[in-house]
Amino acid sequence: MVPLIAISGRSGSGKTTLIVKLIAELKRRGYRVGTLKHDAHGFEIDHEGKDSYRHKRAGARCVVLSSTEKFAVIKDVDAEWHPARLAAAYLADADIVLLEGFKRYAFPRIEVVRAACSKRPVTPDDTSLRAYVTDLPMKTAKPVYGLNHTRRIASFIEREIISKQTPQNISLILDGEPIELDPCSGEKVIASIDAALKAIKKRTRPREVEIRLRLKRHTRRRRK
Amino acid sequence: MVPLIAISGRSGSGKTTLIVKLIAELKRRGYRVGTLKHDAHGFEIDHEGKDSYRHKRAGARCVVLSSTEKFAVIKDVDAEWHPARLAAAYLADADIVLLEGFKRYAFPRIEVVRAACSKRPVTPDDTSLRAYVTDLPMKTAKPVYGLNHTRRIASFIEREIISKQTPQNISLILDGEPIELDPCSGEKVIASIDAALKAIKKRTRPREVEIRLRLKRHTRRRRK
Repeated sequence: MVPLIAISGRSGSGKTTLIVKLIAELKRRGYRVGTLKHDAHGFEIDHEGKDSYRHKRAGARCVVLSSTEKFAVIKDVDAEWHPARLAAAYLADADIVLLEGFKRYAFPRIEVVRAACSKRPVTPDDTSLRAYVTDLPMKTAKPVYGLNHTRRIASFIEREIISKQTPQNISLILDGEPIELDPCSGEKVIASIDAALKAIKKRTRPREVEIRLRLKRHTRRRRK
Repeated sequence: MVPLIAISGRSGSGKTTLIVKLIAELKRRGYRVGTLKHDAHGFEIDHEGKDSYRHKRAGARCVVLSSTEKFAVIKDVDAEWHPARLAAAYLADADIVLLEGFKRYAFPRIEVVRAACSKRPVTPDDTSLRAYVTDLPMKTAKPVYGLNHTRRIASFIEREIISKQTPQNISLILDGEPIELDPCSGEKVIASIDAALKAIKKRTRPREVEIRLRLKRHTRRRRK
Protein backbone atom coordinates (compact mmCIF):
# COMPACT_ATOMS: atom_id res chain seq x y z
CA MET A 1 0.00 0.00 0.00
CA VAL A 2 1.24 3.46 -0.91
CA PRO A 3 1.68 5.76 2.14
CA LEU A 4 -1.45 7.86 2.67
CA ILE A 5 -2.21 10.85 4.88
CA ALA A 6 -5.66 12.42 5.00
CA ILE A 7 -6.04 16.15 5.46
CA SER A 8 -9.39 16.64 7.13
CA GLY A 9 -11.33 19.58 8.52
CA ARG A 10 -14.52 21.51 8.12
CA SER A 11 -15.43 22.86 4.69
CA GLY A 12 -13.63 26.19 4.31
CA SER A 13 -10.96 25.36 6.90
CA GLY A 14 -8.17 25.50 4.34
CA LYS A 15 -7.60 21.85 3.44
CA THR A 16 -6.96 22.50 -0.24
CA THR A 17 -4.66 25.44 0.54
CA LEU A 18 -2.59 23.26 2.87
CA ILE A 19 -2.54 20.36 0.39
CA VAL A 20 -1.34 22.62 -2.44
CA LYS A 21 1.51 23.91 -0.25
CA LEU A 22 2.42 20.39 0.87
CA ILE A 23 2.45 19.08 -2.71
CA ALA A 24 4.99 21.73 -3.71
CA GLU A 25 7.14 21.19 -0.61
CA LEU A 26 7.14 17.38 -0.83
CA LYS A 27 7.86 17.53 -4.55
CA ARG A 28 10.78 19.88 -3.84
CA ARG A 29 12.13 17.18 -1.50
CA GLY A 30 12.09 14.66 -4.35
CA TYR A 31 8.88 12.77 -3.63
CA ARG A 32 6.30 11.82 -6.22
CA VAL A 33 3.04 13.10 -4.82
CA GLY A 34 -0.46 11.90 -5.63
CA THR A 35 -3.72 13.36 -4.40
CA LEU A 36 -7.12 11.82 -3.87
CA LYS A 37 -10.05 14.10 -3.21
CA HIS A 38 -13.51 13.07 -2.14
CA ASP A 39 -16.18 15.31 -3.53
CA ALA A 40 -19.51 14.82 -1.80
CA HIS A 41 -21.24 17.19 -4.18
CA GLY A 42 -20.06 15.49 -7.35
CA PHE A 43 -17.75 17.37 -9.68
CA GLU A 44 -17.54 18.54 -13.22
CA ILE A 45 -14.11 18.03 -14.65
CA ASP A 46 -15.18 17.79 -18.22
CA HIS A 47 -16.40 20.64 -20.36
CA GLU A 48 -18.85 21.19 -23.15
CA GLY A 49 -17.40 20.90 -26.61
CA LYS A 50 -14.55 18.58 -25.62
CA ASP A 51 -14.62 15.12 -27.21
CA SER A 52 -14.54 13.47 -23.80
CA TYR A 53 -17.63 15.48 -22.87
CA ARG A 54 -19.38 14.42 -26.09
CA HIS A 55 -18.51 10.75 -25.43
CA LYS A 56 -19.82 10.91 -21.88
CA ARG A 57 -22.98 12.75 -22.85
CA ALA A 58 -23.69 10.20 -25.60
CA GLY A 59 -23.69 7.53 -22.89
CA ALA A 60 -20.13 6.17 -22.56
CA ARG A 61 -19.65 4.69 -19.11
CA CYS A 62 -15.94 5.34 -19.12
CA VAL A 63 -13.83 7.70 -21.19
CA VAL A 64 -10.04 7.53 -21.33
CA LEU A 65 -7.86 10.16 -22.99
CA SER A 66 -4.25 9.25 -23.59
CA SER A 67 -1.18 11.14 -24.71
CA THR A 68 2.58 10.72 -24.42
CA GLU A 69 2.61 12.92 -21.31
CA LYS A 70 -0.47 11.97 -19.37
CA PHE A 71 -3.76 10.17 -19.41
CA ALA A 72 -7.16 11.00 -18.00
CA VAL A 73 -10.03 8.74 -17.02
CA ILE A 74 -13.63 9.68 -16.30
CA LYS A 75 -15.60 6.68 -15.14
CA ASP A 76 -19.15 6.17 -13.87
CA VAL A 77 -19.48 3.91 -10.84
CA ASP A 78 -22.46 2.32 -9.13
CA ALA A 79 -21.05 3.10 -5.70
CA GLU A 80 -18.07 5.14 -4.59
CA TRP A 81 -14.83 3.18 -4.85
CA HIS A 82 -12.92 2.60 -1.64
CA PRO A 83 -10.05 5.12 -1.54
CA ALA A 84 -7.58 2.27 -1.04
CA ARG A 85 -8.83 0.71 -4.28
CA LEU A 86 -8.42 3.99 -6.15
CA ALA A 87 -4.96 4.39 -4.63
CA ALA A 88 -3.95 0.85 -5.65
CA ALA A 89 -5.23 1.36 -9.20
CA TYR A 90 -3.94 4.86 -9.92
CA LEU A 91 -1.53 6.00 -7.24
CA ALA A 92 0.66 2.96 -6.64
CA ASP A 93 3.73 4.69 -8.07
CA ALA A 94 3.47 7.69 -5.74
CA ASP A 95 5.77 8.04 -2.73
CA ILE A 96 3.01 9.73 -0.76
CA VAL A 97 -0.70 10.31 -1.35
CA LEU A 98 -2.48 13.27 0.21
CA LEU A 99 -6.18 12.62 0.76
CA GLU A 100 -8.72 15.38 1.05
CA GLY A 101 -11.89 14.36 2.82
CA PHE A 102 -12.45 10.63 3.55
CA LYS A 103 -12.56 11.38 7.28
CA ARG A 104 -14.73 8.35 8.02
CA TYR A 105 -11.87 6.03 7.01
CA ALA A 106 -9.13 4.95 9.41
CA PHE A 107 -6.28 6.55 7.46
CA PRO A 108 -3.69 8.54 9.40
CA ARG A 109 -5.11 12.05 9.52
CA ILE A 110 -4.09 15.66 10.04
CA GLU A 111 -6.93 17.97 10.91
CA VAL A 112 -7.01 21.62 9.93
CA VAL A 113 -8.89 23.87 12.39
CA ARG A 114 -8.99 27.50 11.36
CA ALA A 115 -10.50 29.98 13.84
CA ALA A 116 -12.30 31.94 11.12
CA CYS A 117 -14.12 28.76 10.12
CA SER A 118 -14.59 26.75 13.31
CA LYS A 119 -13.46 26.73 16.93
CA ARG A 120 -13.02 23.00 17.33
CA PRO A 121 -12.04 19.86 15.38
CA VAL A 122 -14.67 17.89 13.49
CA THR A 123 -12.97 14.52 13.96
CA PRO A 124 -12.08 12.76 17.24
CA ASP A 125 -8.59 12.88 18.76
CA ASP A 126 -8.19 9.12 18.21
CA THR A 127 -5.25 6.98 17.09
CA SER A 128 -5.70 7.96 13.43
CA LEU A 129 -5.41 11.66 14.30
CA ARG A 130 -1.70 12.41 14.00
CA ALA A 131 -1.45 16.19 14.22
CA TYR A 132 -3.41 19.45 14.16
CA VAL A 133 -2.79 22.40 11.91
CA THR A 134 -4.46 25.39 13.48
CA ASP A 135 -4.37 29.03 14.55
CA LEU A 136 -6.11 28.16 17.83
CA PRO A 137 -4.72 26.93 21.15
CA MET A 138 -5.39 23.19 21.21
CA LYS A 139 -5.64 20.85 24.19
CA THR A 140 -4.04 17.67 22.87
CA ALA A 141 -1.02 15.43 23.28
CA LYS A 142 -0.60 15.41 19.48
CA PRO A 143 1.73 17.74 17.57
CA VAL A 144 0.20 21.12 16.74
CA TYR A 145 1.40 23.19 13.75
CA GLY A 146 0.51 26.66 12.57
CA LEU A 147 -1.37 27.19 9.32
CA ASN A 148 1.79 28.34 7.55
CA HIS A 149 4.24 25.77 8.97
CA THR A 150 4.39 23.98 5.61
CA ARG A 151 7.98 22.80 5.95
CA ARG A 152 7.49 21.52 9.49
CA ILE A 153 4.30 19.69 8.47
CA ALA A 154 6.09 18.18 5.45
CA SER A 155 8.89 16.98 7.74
CA PHE A 156 6.31 15.46 10.07
CA ILE A 157 4.72 13.58 7.12
CA GLU A 158 8.15 12.47 5.94
CA ARG A 159 9.11 11.21 9.41
CA GLU A 160 5.80 9.72 10.54
CA ILE A 161 4.23 8.47 7.32
CA ILE A 162 6.66 8.09 4.43
CA SER A 163 9.63 6.63 6.33
CA LYS A 164 7.49 4.41 8.56
CA GLN A 165 5.79 2.74 5.63
CA THR A 166 6.85 -0.88 5.54
CA PRO A 167 7.49 -1.72 1.91
CA GLN A 168 4.67 -3.93 0.73
CA ASN A 169 5.06 -5.90 -2.42
CA ILE A 170 1.49 -6.93 -3.02
CA SER A 171 -1.88 -5.26 -3.28
CA LEU A 172 -4.91 -7.50 -3.43
CA ILE A 173 -8.44 -6.40 -4.30
CA LEU A 174 -11.23 -8.92 -4.11
CA ASP A 175 -14.58 -7.90 -5.59
CA GLY A 176 -13.54 -4.27 -5.36
CA GLU A 177 -12.52 -4.45 -1.72
CA PRO A 178 -8.86 -3.96 -0.71
CA ILE A 179 -7.63 -6.85 1.45
CA GLU A 180 -4.98 -6.42 4.12
CA LEU A 181 -2.54 -9.32 3.97
CA ASP A 182 -0.09 -10.16 6.71
CA PRO A 183 3.45 -10.17 5.31
CA CYS A 184 3.72 -13.96 5.50
CA SER A 185 0.51 -14.61 3.52
CA GLY A 186 1.52 -11.90 1.09
CA GLU A 187 4.84 -13.58 0.42
CA LYS A 188 3.10 -16.92 -0.11
CA VAL A 189 0.77 -15.45 -2.72
CA ILE A 190 3.69 -13.71 -4.43
CA ALA A 191 5.71 -16.94 -4.51
CA SER A 192 2.89 -18.94 -6.05
CA ILE A 193 2.23 -16.29 -8.71
CA ASP A 194 5.95 -16.03 -9.43
CA ALA A 195 6.03 -19.80 -9.95
CA ALA A 196 2.95 -19.71 -12.19
CA LEU A 197 4.48 -16.94 -14.32
CA LYS A 198 7.71 -18.86 -14.72
CA ALA A 199 5.79 -21.69 -16.29
CA ILE A 200 4.21 -19.57 -18.99
CA LYS A 201 6.57 -16.95 -20.19
CA LYS A 202 9.74 -16.96 -22.17
CA ARG A 203 11.05 -13.55 -21.28
CA THR A 204 13.04 -11.75 -18.64
CA ARG A 205 11.55 -11.99 -15.21
CA PRO A 206 9.25 -8.99 -14.78
CA ARG A 207 9.46 -6.59 -11.88
CA GLU A 208 5.92 -5.23 -11.83
CA VAL A 209 3.01 -7.63 -12.29
CA GLU A 210 -0.65 -6.73 -12.67
CA ILE A 211 -3.23 -9.47 -12.88
CA ARG A 212 -6.98 -9.22 -13.14
CA LEU A 213 -9.05 -12.34 -13.13
CA ARG A 214 -12.60 -13.47 -13.05
CA LEU A 215 -13.12 -16.69 -11.15
CA LYS A 216 -15.86 -18.97 -12.28
CA ARG A 217 -18.63 -19.68 -9.82
CA HIS A 218 -18.38 -23.14 -8.42
CA THR A 219 -21.57 -24.97 -9.18
CA ARG A 220 -22.69 -27.42 -6.56
CA ARG A 221 -23.86 -30.80 -7.70
CA ARG A 222 -27.42 -31.49 -6.80
CA ARG A 223 -28.56 -34.83 -5.65
CA LYS A 224 -31.65 -36.20 -7.23
CA MET B 1 -9.46 -8.70 -23.05
CA VAL B 2 -12.42 -6.41 -23.49
CA PRO B 3 -13.63 -6.23 -27.15
CA LEU B 4 -12.06 -3.27 -28.93
CA ILE B 5 -12.72 -1.58 -32.25
CA ALA B 6 -10.66 1.34 -33.48
CA ILE B 7 -12.28 4.10 -35.52
CA SER B 8 -9.52 5.54 -37.65
CA GLY B 9 -9.29 8.13 -40.39
CA ARG B 10 -7.71 11.43 -41.25
CA SER B 11 -8.14 14.33 -38.87
CA GLY B 12 -11.47 15.98 -39.72
CA SER B 13 -12.90 12.84 -41.35
CA GLY B 14 -15.64 12.55 -38.74
CA LYS B 15 -14.27 9.94 -36.31
CA THR B 16 -15.66 11.62 -33.20
CA THR B 17 -19.04 12.22 -34.85
CA LEU B 18 -19.29 8.53 -35.77
CA ILE B 19 -18.12 7.44 -32.30
CA VAL B 20 -20.69 9.63 -30.57
CA LYS B 21 -23.47 8.14 -32.71
CA LEU B 22 -22.20 4.60 -32.10
CA ILE B 23 -22.01 5.13 -28.32
CA ALA B 24 -25.67 6.16 -28.24
CA GLU B 25 -26.78 3.31 -30.51
CA LEU B 26 -24.76 0.61 -28.69
CA LYS B 27 -25.95 1.90 -25.31
CA ARG B 28 -29.54 1.76 -26.57
CA ARG B 29 -28.90 -1.92 -27.35
CA GLY B 30 -27.92 -2.54 -23.73
CA TYR B 31 -24.13 -2.50 -23.99
CA ARG B 32 -21.81 -0.72 -21.60
CA VAL B 33 -19.58 1.36 -23.83
CA GLY B 34 -16.12 2.68 -23.01
CA THR B 35 -14.02 4.97 -25.18
CA LEU B 36 -10.29 5.45 -25.44
CA LYS B 37 -8.98 8.40 -27.38
CA HIS B 38 -5.41 9.06 -28.35
CA ASP B 39 -4.58 12.72 -28.42
CA ALA B 40 -1.32 13.41 -30.18
CA HIS B 41 -1.45 17.07 -29.28
CA GLY B 42 -1.98 16.51 -25.58
CA PHE B 43 -5.21 17.62 -23.99
CA GLU B 44 -6.45 19.93 -21.31
CA ILE B 45 -9.24 18.36 -19.37
CA ASP B 46 -8.71 20.32 -16.22
CA HIS B 47 -9.48 23.96 -15.69
CA GLU B 48 -8.11 26.86 -13.77
CA GLY B 49 -9.60 27.39 -10.35
CA LYS B 50 -10.63 23.75 -9.85
CA ASP B 51 -8.92 21.97 -6.95
CA SER B 52 -7.66 19.26 -9.30
CA TYR B 53 -6.01 21.97 -11.39
CA ARG B 54 -4.42 23.52 -8.30
CA HIS B 55 -3.10 20.10 -7.21
CA LYS B 56 -1.61 19.38 -10.63
CA ARG B 57 -0.10 22.82 -10.96
CA ALA B 58 1.51 22.51 -7.52
CA GLY B 59 3.29 19.40 -8.81
CA ALA B 60 1.08 16.38 -8.06
CA ARG B 61 1.91 13.55 -10.45
CA CYS B 62 -1.54 12.07 -10.24
CA VAL B 63 -4.82 13.59 -9.11
CA VAL B 64 -7.91 11.50 -8.41
CA LEU B 65 -11.38 12.95 -7.74
CA SER B 66 -13.97 10.59 -6.35
CA SER B 67 -17.69 10.78 -5.74
CA THR B 68 -20.56 8.34 -5.32
CA GLU B 69 -21.39 8.59 -9.02
CA LYS B 70 -18.06 8.74 -10.78
CA PHE B 71 -14.37 9.27 -10.43
CA ALA B 72 -11.79 11.09 -12.51
CA VAL B 73 -8.06 10.60 -12.77
CA ILE B 74 -5.40 12.80 -14.34
CA LYS B 75 -2.02 11.09 -14.31
CA ASP B 76 1.39 12.05 -15.66
CA VAL B 77 3.26 9.28 -17.45
CA ASP B 78 6.84 8.98 -18.68
CA ALA B 79 5.73 7.35 -21.93
CA GLU B 80 2.32 6.75 -23.42
CA TRP B 81 0.65 3.69 -21.95
CA HIS B 82 -0.20 0.88 -24.35
CA PRO B 83 -3.93 1.14 -25.15
CA ALA B 84 -4.42 -2.51 -24.14
CA ARG B 85 -2.94 -1.67 -20.73
CA LEU B 86 -5.29 1.30 -20.33
CA ALA B 87 -8.20 -0.88 -21.46
CA ALA B 88 -7.31 -3.70 -19.05
CA ALA B 89 -6.87 -1.32 -16.15
CA TYR B 90 -9.80 1.00 -16.65
CA LEU B 91 -12.21 -0.38 -19.22
CA ALA B 92 -12.44 -4.03 -18.23
CA ASP B 93 -16.10 -3.74 -17.25
CA ALA B 94 -17.18 -2.40 -20.65
CA ASP B 95 -18.88 -4.67 -23.20
CA ILE B 96 -17.22 -2.79 -26.04
CA VAL B 97 -14.50 -0.15 -26.24
CA LEU B 98 -14.40 2.30 -29.13
CA LEU B 99 -10.89 3.58 -29.82
CA GLU B 100 -10.21 6.85 -31.56
CA GLY B 101 -6.80 7.04 -33.13
CA PHE B 102 -4.22 4.32 -32.32
CA LYS B 103 -4.05 3.37 -36.00
CA ARG B 104 -0.52 1.98 -35.65
CA TYR B 105 -1.79 -0.83 -33.40
CA ALA B 106 -3.19 -4.09 -34.73
CA PHE B 107 -6.67 -3.64 -33.29
CA PRO B 108 -9.65 -4.39 -35.53
CA ARG B 109 -10.32 -1.13 -37.31
CA ILE B 110 -13.05 0.75 -39.17
CA GLU B 111 -11.78 3.60 -41.30
CA VAL B 112 -13.81 6.73 -41.97
CA VAL B 113 -13.10 8.34 -45.36
CA ARG B 114 -15.10 11.49 -45.98
CA ALA B 115 -14.84 13.06 -49.44
CA ALA B 116 -14.73 16.60 -48.06
CA CYS B 117 -11.64 15.67 -46.08
CA SER B 118 -9.77 13.11 -48.15
CA LYS B 119 -10.22 10.97 -51.24
CA ARG B 120 -8.54 7.82 -49.96
CA PRO B 121 -7.94 5.84 -46.75
CA VAL B 122 -4.94 6.59 -44.55
CA THR B 123 -4.51 3.00 -43.34
CA PRO B 124 -3.89 -0.14 -45.42
CA ASP B 125 -6.66 -2.56 -46.39
CA ASP B 126 -5.05 -5.29 -44.26
CA THR B 127 -6.52 -7.95 -41.96
CA SER B 128 -7.12 -5.44 -39.17
CA LEU B 129 -9.23 -3.28 -41.47
CA ARG B 130 -12.77 -4.58 -41.03
CA ALA B 131 -14.96 -2.03 -42.80
CA TYR B 132 -15.08 1.41 -44.39
CA VAL B 133 -17.48 4.19 -43.53
CA THR B 134 -17.47 6.61 -46.41
CA ASP B 135 -19.35 8.77 -48.89
CA LEU B 136 -16.99 7.68 -51.68
CA PRO B 137 -17.06 4.64 -53.95
CA MET B 138 -14.49 2.23 -52.54
CA LYS B 139 -12.61 -0.61 -54.25
CA THR B 140 -12.46 -3.24 -51.52
CA ALA B 141 -13.74 -6.66 -50.54
CA LYS B 142 -14.57 -5.28 -47.08
CA PRO B 143 -18.01 -4.03 -46.06
CA VAL B 144 -18.65 -0.38 -46.93
CA TYR B 145 -21.15 1.74 -44.98
CA GLY B 146 -22.43 5.27 -45.50
CA LEU B 147 -21.56 8.03 -43.03
CA ASN B 148 -25.06 7.92 -41.52
CA HIS B 149 -25.53 4.14 -41.39
CA THR B 150 -25.15 4.17 -37.61
CA ARG B 151 -27.48 1.24 -36.94
CA ARG B 152 -25.92 -0.92 -39.64
CA ILE B 153 -22.41 -0.13 -38.36
CA ALA B 154 -23.50 -0.91 -34.78
CA SER B 155 -24.89 -4.25 -35.97
CA PHE B 156 -21.60 -4.96 -37.74
CA ILE B 157 -19.68 -4.25 -34.51
CA GLU B 158 -22.10 -6.39 -32.55
CA ARG B 159 -21.76 -9.28 -34.99
CA GLU B 160 -18.06 -9.08 -35.80
CA ILE B 161 -16.50 -7.80 -32.59
CA ILE B 162 -18.71 -8.16 -29.52
CA SER B 163 -20.17 -11.60 -30.23
CA LYS B 164 -16.90 -13.03 -31.55
CA GLN B 165 -14.99 -12.12 -28.43
CA THR B 166 -14.00 -15.31 -26.66
CA PRO B 167 -14.57 -14.74 -22.98
CA GLN B 168 -11.22 -14.35 -21.31
CA ASN B 169 -10.92 -14.63 -17.61
CA ILE B 170 -7.44 -13.25 -17.10
CA SER B 171 -5.55 -10.14 -18.03
CA LEU B 172 -1.84 -10.07 -17.34
CA ILE B 173 0.41 -7.03 -17.51
CA LEU B 174 4.14 -7.48 -16.96
CA ASP B 175 6.20 -4.31 -16.54
CA GLY B 176 3.44 -2.31 -18.18
CA GLU B 177 3.13 -4.56 -21.21
CA PRO B 178 -0.05 -6.58 -21.82
CA ILE B 179 0.74 -10.27 -22.35
CA GLU B 180 -1.36 -12.53 -24.54
CA LEU B 181 -1.89 -15.88 -22.83
CA ASP B 182 -3.13 -18.96 -24.58
CA PRO B 183 -6.28 -20.25 -22.84
CA CYS B 184 -4.47 -23.23 -21.33
CA SER B 185 -1.69 -21.15 -19.72
CA GLY B 186 -4.30 -18.65 -18.57
CA GLU B 187 -6.29 -21.35 -16.81
CA LYS B 188 -3.12 -22.63 -15.12
CA VAL B 189 -2.29 -19.20 -13.74
CA ILE B 190 -5.90 -18.72 -12.60
CA ALA B 191 -5.90 -22.10 -10.85
CA SER B 192 -2.68 -21.40 -8.97
CA ILE B 193 -3.88 -17.97 -7.84
CA ASP B 194 -7.24 -19.41 -6.83
CA ALA B 195 -5.39 -21.97 -4.71
CA ALA B 196 -3.14 -19.31 -3.17
CA LEU B 197 -6.17 -17.18 -2.27
CA LYS B 198 -7.95 -20.11 -0.66
CA ALA B 199 -5.04 -20.49 1.73
CA ILE B 200 -5.18 -16.94 2.99
CA LYS B 201 -8.71 -15.75 3.24
CA LYS B 202 -11.63 -16.62 5.39
CA ARG B 203 -14.41 -15.17 3.32
CA THR B 204 -16.70 -16.05 0.46
CA ARG B 205 -14.84 -16.90 -2.70
CA PRO B 206 -14.44 -13.70 -4.70
CA ARG B 207 -15.50 -13.31 -8.30
CA GLU B 208 -13.22 -10.49 -9.40
CA VAL B 209 -9.58 -10.51 -8.34
CA GLU B 210 -7.05 -7.74 -8.88
CA ILE B 211 -3.46 -8.26 -7.86
CA ARG B 212 -0.51 -5.97 -8.24
CA LEU B 213 2.88 -7.14 -7.18
CA ARG B 214 6.46 -6.14 -7.23
CA LEU B 215 8.88 -9.03 -7.59
CA LYS B 216 12.23 -8.76 -5.95
CA ARG B 217 15.21 -8.89 -8.22
CA HIS B 218 17.06 -12.14 -7.98
CA THR B 219 20.61 -11.48 -6.97
CA ARG B 220 23.19 -13.74 -8.50
CA ARG B 221 25.88 -15.11 -6.28
CA ARG B 222 29.32 -14.11 -7.34
CA ARG B 223 32.22 -16.47 -7.22
CA LYS B 224 35.39 -15.20 -5.68
